Amino acid sequence: MDRIGVGVLGATGLVGSRIVRLLRGHPWFAVRAVSGSSRTVGKRYGDVLRDDTGIGEDALDLTVVASDPRNFDTPIILSALQAEEAESLELEFARAGHAVVSNAKSYRMAADVPLLLPEINWQHTSLIKTQQEKRGWSGLIACTPNCSTSHLVLVLAPISNEFALNAVLVTTMQAISGAGYDGVSALSITDNVIPHIGGEEEKIEAETLKILGREPAHERGSLRISATTTRVPVIDGHFESVSVEMEYPITAEEIIAAWQDWRPLERLELPTAPPQPVIYRSEPDRPQPRLDRDAGGGMSTSVGRLRKCSVLDWKFVLLGHNLVRGAAGNVILIAELLKAQGYVSG
Amino acid sequence: MDRIGVGVLGATGLVGSRIVRLLRGHPWFAVRAVSGSSRTVGKRYGDVLRDDTGIGEDALDLTVVASDPRNFDTPIILSALQAEEAESLELEFARAGHAVVSNAKSYRMAADVPLLLPEINWQHTSLIKTQQEKRGWSGLIACTPNCSTSHLVLVLAPISNEFALNAVLVTTMQAISGAGYDGVSALSITDNVIPHIGGEEEKIEAETLKILGREPAHERGSLRISATTTRVPVIDGHFESVSVEMEYPITAEEIIAAWQDWRPLERLELPTAPPQPVIYRSEPDRPQPRLDRDAGGGMSTSVGRLRKCSVLDWKFVLLGHNLVRGAAGNVILIAELLKAQGYVSG
Amino acid sequence: MDRIGVGVLGATGLVGSRIVRLLRGHPWFAVRAVSGSSRTVGKRYGDVLRDDTGIGEDALDLTVVASDPRNFDTPIILSALQAEEAESLELEFARAGHAVVSNAKSYRMAADVPLLLPEINWQHTSLIKTQQEKRGWSGLIACTPNCSTSHLVLVLAPISNEFALNAVLVTTMQAISGAGYDGVSALSITDNVIPHIGGEEEKIEAETLKILGREPAHERGSLRISATTTRVPVIDGHFESVSVEMEYPITAEEIIAAWQDWRPLERLELPTAPPQPVIYRSEPDRPQPRLDRDAGGGMSTSVGRLRKCSVLDWKFVLLGHNLVRGAAGNVILIAELLKAQGYVSG
Amino acid sequence: MDRIGVGVLGATGLVGSRIVRLLRGHPWFAVRAVSGSSRTVGKRYGDVLRDDTGIGEDALDLTVVASDPRNFDTPIILSALQAEEAESLELEFARAGHAVVSNAKSYRMAADVPLLLPEINWQHTSLIKTQQEKRGWSGLIACTPNCSTSHLVLVLAPISNEFALNAVLVTTMQAISGAGYDGVSALSITDNVIPHIGGEEEKIEAETLKILGREPAHERGSLRISATTTRVPVIDGHFESVSVEMEYPITAEEIIAAWQDWRPLERLELPTAPPQPVIYRSEPDRPQPRLDRDAGGGMSTSVGRLRKCSVLDWKFVLLGHNLVRGAAGNVILIAELLKAQGYVSG
Repeated sequence: MDRIGVGVLGATGLVGSRIVRLLRGHPWFAVRAVSGSSRTVGKRYGDVLRDDTGIGEDALDLTVVASDPRNFDTPIILSALQAEEAESLELEFARAGHAVVSNAKSYRMAADVPLLLPEINWQHTSLIKTQQEKRGWSGLIACTPNCSTSHLVLVLAPISNEFALNAVLVTTMQAISGAGYDGVSALSITDNVIPHIGGEEEKIEAETLKILGREPAHERGSLRISATTTRVPVIDGHFESVSVEMEYPITAEEIIAAWQDWRPLERLELPTAPPQPVIYRSEPDRPQPRLDRDAGGGMSTSVGRLRKCSVLDWKFVLLGHNLVRGAAGNVILIAELLKAQGYVSG
Repeated sequence: MDRIGVGVLGATGLVGSRIVRLLRGHPWFAVRAVSGSSRTVGKRYGDVLRDDTGIGEDALDLTVVASDPRNFDTPIILSALQAEEAESLELEFARAGHAVVSNAKSYRMAADVPLLLPEINWQHTSLIKTQQEKRGWSGLIACTPNCSTSHLVLVLAPISNEFALNAVLVTTMQAISGAGYDGVSALSITDNVIPHIGGEEEKIEAETLKILGREPAHERGSLRISATTTRVPVIDGHFESVSVEMEYPITAEEIIAAWQDWRPLERLELPTAPPQPVIYRSEPDRPQPRLDRDAGGGMSTSVGRLRKCSVLDWKFVLLGHNLVRGAAGNVILIAELLKAQGYVSG
Repeated sequence: MDRIGVGVLGATGLVGSRIVRLLRGHPWFAVRAVSGSSRTVGKRYGDVLRDDTGIGEDALDLTVVASDPRNFDTPIILSALQAEEAESLELEFARAGHAVVSNAKSYRMAADVPLLLPEINWQHTSLIKTQQEKRGWSGLIACTPNCSTSHLVLVLAPISNEFALNAVLVTTMQAISGAGYDGVSALSITDNVIPHIGGEEEKIEAETLKILGREPAHERGSLRISATTTRVPVIDGHFESVSVEMEYPITAEEIIAAWQDWRPLERLELPTAPPQPVIYRSEPDRPQPRLDRDAGGGMSTSVGRLRKCSVLDWKFVLLGHNLVRGAAGNVILIAELLKAQGYVSG
Repeated sequence: MDRIGVGVLGATGLVGSRIVRLLRGHPWFAVRAVSGSSRTVGKRYGDVLRDDTGIGEDALDLTVVASDPRNFDTPIILSALQAEEAESLELEFARAGHAVVSNAKSYRMAADVPLLLPEINWQHTSLIKTQQEKRGWSGLIACTPNCSTSHLVLVLAPISNEFALNAVLVTTMQAISGAGYDGVSALSITDNVIPHIGGEEEKIEAETLKILGREPAHERGSLRISATTTRVPVIDGHFESVSVEMEYPITAEEIIAAWQDWRPLERLELPTAPPQPVIYRSEPDRPQPRLDRDAGGGMSTSVGRLRKCSVLDWKFVLLGHNLVRGAAGNVILIAELLKAQGYVSG
């Protein structure tokens, strides 16, 4: 089978270059075009990267182009554009017939755009039909959730499905790579915690409801979510401390089994789907960012320290790679889902 | 007035040496004796310190002695001993007639030992009479709370007093100095978060109830507390993310006023009491460990980001110096309280 | 005596705000005006600072103005402008009659501008007369050296004076604050060393020769200097590993005595001059950035590990505060020298 | 071919567990036994590891034994013991007929023990014959150099071979993992540089001469080496700033070619030998620990910033993985060399 061509928008940034790196040797997709800022257009991709670790020679030799549909003849567009650029450009690509999978926040909450964690809501892709009719285009836009939301929802979904989840209280400790190459200055974060990440708490609270909605385009009702987001001196890996309130009684064994046994995508055999999306660690001091962020190739979320919460019902901590499942890896997994479901073809 | 002699037990460690440093130029107290491990006994104090920053020449020239009452003729003993040593030695010092203020956990929860944050429960020193009668000694033992508990309770007290507090859910991000000089290896914490600190969650949950008890020796009832404690790559300053549930409605303005206007110790004029024990910061990204840990000379707790919590009622973050208010500074403040109340004299 | 008015250019940056902080309570000078970028002009100084630690209330209440001589009626201008701005603006201020002491590199190597470490070459201020005649202005420009040069030269001078110094080989490990607030991204320096700081090696090699010149405007001849400069994950304090070759034999005792006994400025009684400019530490593992950067209020350089070098003659390590002696503090010390020598008056 | 059994001594430490990890899937060798301290003897290996990342299931299921030859029937013993234990135990294993490759310093400088960087001095294994005759054993001891020495010598060797090297002046910035799991406390190294590593400078100076000796057991004469060793807040990867003096003129092009073209082991096809032992990076800001430590699977040394030195002749910086080439990886490479040369058989 010929591999399907993929174009990567914003390919010189931290998420964009991670997409290219993760696609090295991909069985279905091949990166055929990369876009970057005007400063980089016309240059060899490998020459404008800050870190070319793990990127294939073929990709390094591509010439950077502008983010314009005329420069791309690939069926699939993976977008790591910043929100301000994404807002108009992703529309242009969808109008030009491309299947756009976006890491930007611009269309995540649009009623006709699926916000996907494939293990949880693969059926939300049915929104695409509505989207194409309503917008009158043959392309499509699908979005990956915010990086700290992705890991939280992966852990909530297995227990939310079988038992009713009433409330979630979460404090995050997020890695510096979540803000991009220059998003956090060394002087601000060394020996420090920054108790604020603009817009992040609102994203967690809103996106979680959309992803857990039982019907596409219907938000999960009756679930209260409260988030506090902070930045800590960690390179990669978002850590979260979570307490939950359940509608029905549930035991620790049931929760752990729900996580460990959860294999919702198994039959689709998507190349980037990890064998086990949620991994429970029974050690008292796990998960930890440096030891567990690469679990499942960065696509698994690790959970630990499940115990009774004397204020809500249960509490635990979780950890996942913000650049892989939290961004680049989930963008690729969505593209694989779209391919498996027939929304894109080579 | 002649200054009252003070002996410091465990004076070569991080908390012990901070006590000595904070007592430099103290108007009431003077360090007259310091104890250390057998390895250091007989040596000049300044020669066995890992870091002598800010310690006075008089103290540096003291000769380290063993932690034995026969080596101490000071009315006041400030103990920075580890729990295993503190358990027997602090009894010996109290029996020998010393007023012992301890940083160890050994006697914090004993029914006849006051666990003191002077601003909150100065009247709990009335337990000392019971203690002296029951134990048959002329000395006394009083304890300072665990480092992460101290800052949490300082922030809870002003709103707990005026409005009923029902529940507290807290996630801490604690500094490495909280574990002593060699408590955390660089390899374990660099680029990492460790989601477990042995015994810490239990201490927060138990000590908070004792400190907030309306009567000495009666635990505050009907308050549920749930803590998750973690270690982050920060040198000094424990950061905490807190959500609270109140019995009665309360506005943000009332909460902030309760914190900002709280001056419970003013009339006692204790030298180490900060002018403002709780400081509210209105900036969106404060408090931060590196910028705020030295507020009030390390004796004030800084709070910020007060906002509605959609699961409980209110949420906020707080920050305080774990070695000062969380240990050495509060030990000194307790000694000052005991002096002001007549429990020790020169 | 009325304090002399001082204006600070670029007062919102890391060096500028440190100048204002160090001038709090200064016996001779008072900050009367502060300039900042167009984004900050017209705002209260305290409201645009990223970190207001240690800055006096009077200064916090100043209104930020543009860097234009018409906004300043202070005899002294302390400039923390970036080089590109400094180049034209500092000339304007000197032409308008101000005594400008600059932290920028723009005029450091100009033949008629003194490049001053007051302890070493206070007599180089005699260049000012030439400068005023040649340039036809009543103001003046004097410069502080590059931050890593300052500490190196302070340590070389005492041994260079008495014994001939032939060659210096230095490797620096520089702190992130040397690059300003946003000069180093957290992602680039965490768990890393960056082996390149643009232009820094050339500055060390050139400025050292000018400062050590026996006559003003005559470079020290016959001294070879070779520098490698790197950035390490340290907040404040530049560390340097140095080997030197001497013309004449010299013993370790003579070197240490030359450093410890060096008090060249004593009789001038400049308020910011540290009692001991160079401090030798005999411990095997000192100096260290976190323990020694504040020695002498940040104005002293600490040296340690003096021992034979089997390639050159002697080797040692040194450490000093890059923002204090390496920038803001030395700017103030130069202003004090100019006042003491009669180049500025109130 | 059946794989040759390997026993790993001190397998629970940082170097020992890295040896086991690197041997996963090794084509020639299989780990059959692991030893640890008395605390771990009798337990499952996987249960006593602090970090089991990358270690194969077969190894994780081994039972830890004491470091006694009676517990080992493997021809090859790879020793990650501490020096104090290694001194007696390695002799016992050699006497019992094992080929011992050691990471400890105990026998590195012994006249009849080869100290090996296989690319440089593979012929030094001829010492083994002398060793066996003199010591009267059928086993053998061979040693890997100190971690900072290994990378330095790999970079010196190609230019030392073709052009005479007169003098080397090096300042190291070493990673915390070089001191083992608990060797460096977080409080001592965070935001800091420690300018002393006990015994390290002496090791660099002595071991370099032995490795570069033209004849086994004859030290390279007439080469002066001066080292300053420091610890910096980096997890893995020793960085070194080097200046060299040459006997004969040499151009930058010749030096770079000597490094880039150096393939001394090619014909032996040792599995762990990297394709290119020394990699020259032409970017102005490379190598860096985080980006380059894994070059060649951690077995290559990266060099950069080659330029004229105004005191000696040339200067450059280099970087290599201290746990791989600097310890565990080179131990394995030596074992492969011994196998290829017929000193051990299965």
